[in-house]
Amino acid sequence: MASLPSVSAPAFDTAPARVSIDLGDRSYSIDIGAGLLDRPSSFDGLPKAAVAVIVTNTTVEPLYGQRLRDCLTGRFPAIHTVVLPDGEDHKDWATLNTVFDALAAYGCDRKSVLFALGGGVIGDMTGFAASCFMRGIPFVQVPTTLLAQVDSSVGGKTAVNHPAGKNLLGAFYQPLQVVCDLSTLASLPPREMSAGLAEVIKYGPIHDMAFLDWIEAHLDALRAGDTAALAHAVQRSCEIKAEVVGADEREAGLRAILNFGHTFGHAIEAGMGYGVWLHGEAVGCGMVMAATLSQHLGLVDAEFVARLRGLVERAGLPVVAPHIDPRDNASRYLELMRGDKKSEGGEIRFVLIDGPGRAVVKPAPDALVRAVIDACCAPI
Amino acid sequence: MASLPSVSAPAFDTAPARVSIDLGDRSYSIDIGAGLLDRPSSFDGLPKAAVAVIVTNTTVEPLYGQRLRDCLTGRFPAIHTVVLPDGEDHKDWATLNTVFDALAAYGCDRKSVLFALGGGVIGDMTGFAASCFMRGIPFVQVPTTLLAQVDSSVGGKTAVNHPAGKNLLGAFYQPLQVVCDLSTLASLPPREMSAGLAEVIKYGPIHDMAFLDWIEAHLDALRAGDTAALAHAVQRSCEIKAEVVGADEREAGLRAILNFGHTFGHAIEAGMGYGVWLHGEAVGCGMVMAATLSQHLGLVDAEFVARLRGLVERAGLPVVAPHIDPRDNASRYLELMRGDKKSEGGEIRFVLIDGPGRAVVKPAPDALVRAVIDACCAPI
Repeated sequence: MASLPSVSAPAFDTAPARVSIDLGDRSYSIDIGAGLLDRPSSFDGLPKAAVAVIVTNTTVEPLYGQRLRDCLTGRFPAIHTVVLPDGEDHKDWATLNTVFDALAAYGCDRKSVLFALGGGVIGDMTGFAASCFMRGIPFVQVPTTLLAQVDSSVGGKTAVNHPAGKNLLGAFYQPLQVVCDLSTLASLPPREMSAGLAEVIKYGPIHDMAFLDWIEAHLDALRAGDTAALAHAVQRSCEIKAEVVGADEREAGLRAILNFGHTFGHAIEAGMGYGVWLHGEAVGCGMVMAATLSQHLGLVDAEFVARLRGLVERAGLPVVAPHIDPRDNASRYLELMRGDKKSEGGEIRFVLIDGPGRAVVKPAPDALVRAVIDACCAPI
Repeated sequence: MASLPSVSAPAFDTAPARVSIDLGDRSYSIDIGAGLLDRPSSFDGLPKAAVAVIVTNTTVEPLYGQRLRDCLTGRFPAIHTVVLPDGEDHKDWATLNTVFDALAAYGCDRKSVLFALGGGVIGDMTGFAASCFMRGIPFVQVPTTLLAQVDSSVGGKTAVNHPAGKNLLGAFYQPLQVVCDLSTLASLPPREMSAGLAEVIKYGPIHDMAFLDWIEAHLDALRAGDTAALAHAVQRSCEIKAEVVGADEREAGLRAILNFGHTFGHAIEAGMGYGVWLHGEAVGCGMVMAATLSQHLGLVDAEFVARLRGLVERAGLPVVAPHIDPRDNASRYLELMRGDKKSEGGEIRFVLIDGPGRAVVKPAPDALVRAVIDACCAPI
């Protein structure tokens, strides 16, 4: 659980930082540095293939599409780009099918390589497309948001939404490589930067309180887009996630701790309607709720909750939970949480903080959960 | 490569035959016997879950649906059945989506167990549905056709069709268990029994000539539905497939030999329009074509080809290939084979017989392939 107490600017001009994800024959590396998209050598480890297909969206394509194409020219005889509409609304099978149509039209075979250029939605969809097409073809994550760099591009979870549930359909499918170019974060709107910070903060309470100390000390630098600070935040987040995922690739147990804040958070997202709050905003607020539940169960003290709440607020994230049902708010929260993928036989499995730096997954009495929801929700 | 030269009736009343598929933490067993669907103990090894969902079709449901439900009652508190329309025409995403809708409506969670009750199409679709839903839930294969018992239920290949290709979208996803009740084969139409025999015959030339000897000696018993003969044929086929799949789960190399007859066969199916010839019929004829190509390459002699052709014909399968394009038949075959999932960079990879009992995967000169197509196709 070692973490650097301070940061000096790494020499990105020479070599990126590398985090290795150890999953046997599905192992891969995450490279982190500024300007990686300007260096063809960033992709030196990839196998040869006749066709590369970049999957991106209408927002990211004008920003970084040509840079990635330039970077891949010479490595792949044919490079195609599929531009999807931007947003969670389009994270569905119909959009995915346009990717399949394109892959078929471009004559892709089992060795063709997909590149996911964008945020979490693009990464999830491209990964799922790669996992399904011909029962699995190689893909590379090139995440361009903080959230994707510290969370969704690592760990192999891919998915699309279904009317019955967010991320209801998907696969565990690992990329060949993840390339995090920190310079792409310069184009990130402040609200999305804050949303990404929620997932960075998450790693502190569940695994590494020294990292939480560091985040508190460097939060202003992170929000200002300081490259050295971002480099450390991304690297340490990926290291922690790698450790957890390496021990439990398919979320049989330990891996569930990465969902700290997500059970309440998913209820907020679903209850408000997806897209009203950003995922990271819902997770930020959800962490405050889960910490409060941990306190009610006697696992952490009020001071810990106040500290986490303060940090989430300083990150620019909401800390007061929304009312999602005017008649019976708490019941609606419970109903949505029971429908979550992580629930089993209708029992909600909360990720709780079992003392600072340690997470545990367990159920909680409904009455207590209702009290937490009431305490955390905004007065009407 | 040991195989029994003769067969004595196994004591199915006491214990089924069991073939183990060794794939590390994805290992499972195939149980083979008559009447397994009448014994709840057939499913003793399954984990507990609140919900079981049987996926079947309109043809199989009236024959075996209630027997499977009776067998599972007591093991699962809730048992639901999803009845899909029968046939390859419905092996698509739209039909799969009705399964997802049902799983969501029945409140399935990650521990819910799917049962694929039917032939290859039901097995492929149920397996793919299980692999996608919540990124993977458990499933059990209960194959009711000979083809599914000896081939598609073993090895973890799941898929649906896409307008751009048969089985274009899918996953490698292993079942928890395969239960082959031989008594279900009694309801199989003769044409489908023959189609299943194509995949049984296949295992001889690629891996075990003693098994080919045995098939030749017992073909009449197999076609007549003799239980003891079917038991041996299913068991030995599964053993050979298990050996090959165990060495190469994701079809990186060796596993491709299981596609003997399939490269030409897929071209026949696609060229004629799916469903005109049964898959097994196309494979039977495809094996004759692939053997002829092997002969043209000097790998086997004319006697071997004549022997295989004779056996395929005795099994009730076509041995004369169809004309699929009135203008340029051979070019159309080549075009379709180049679009096959197994081709790489436009190069067709043929499974050839490299001496009786041994298969090899390699390309062949176009001119030679054209000559084989011309020789094997029916005169106009």
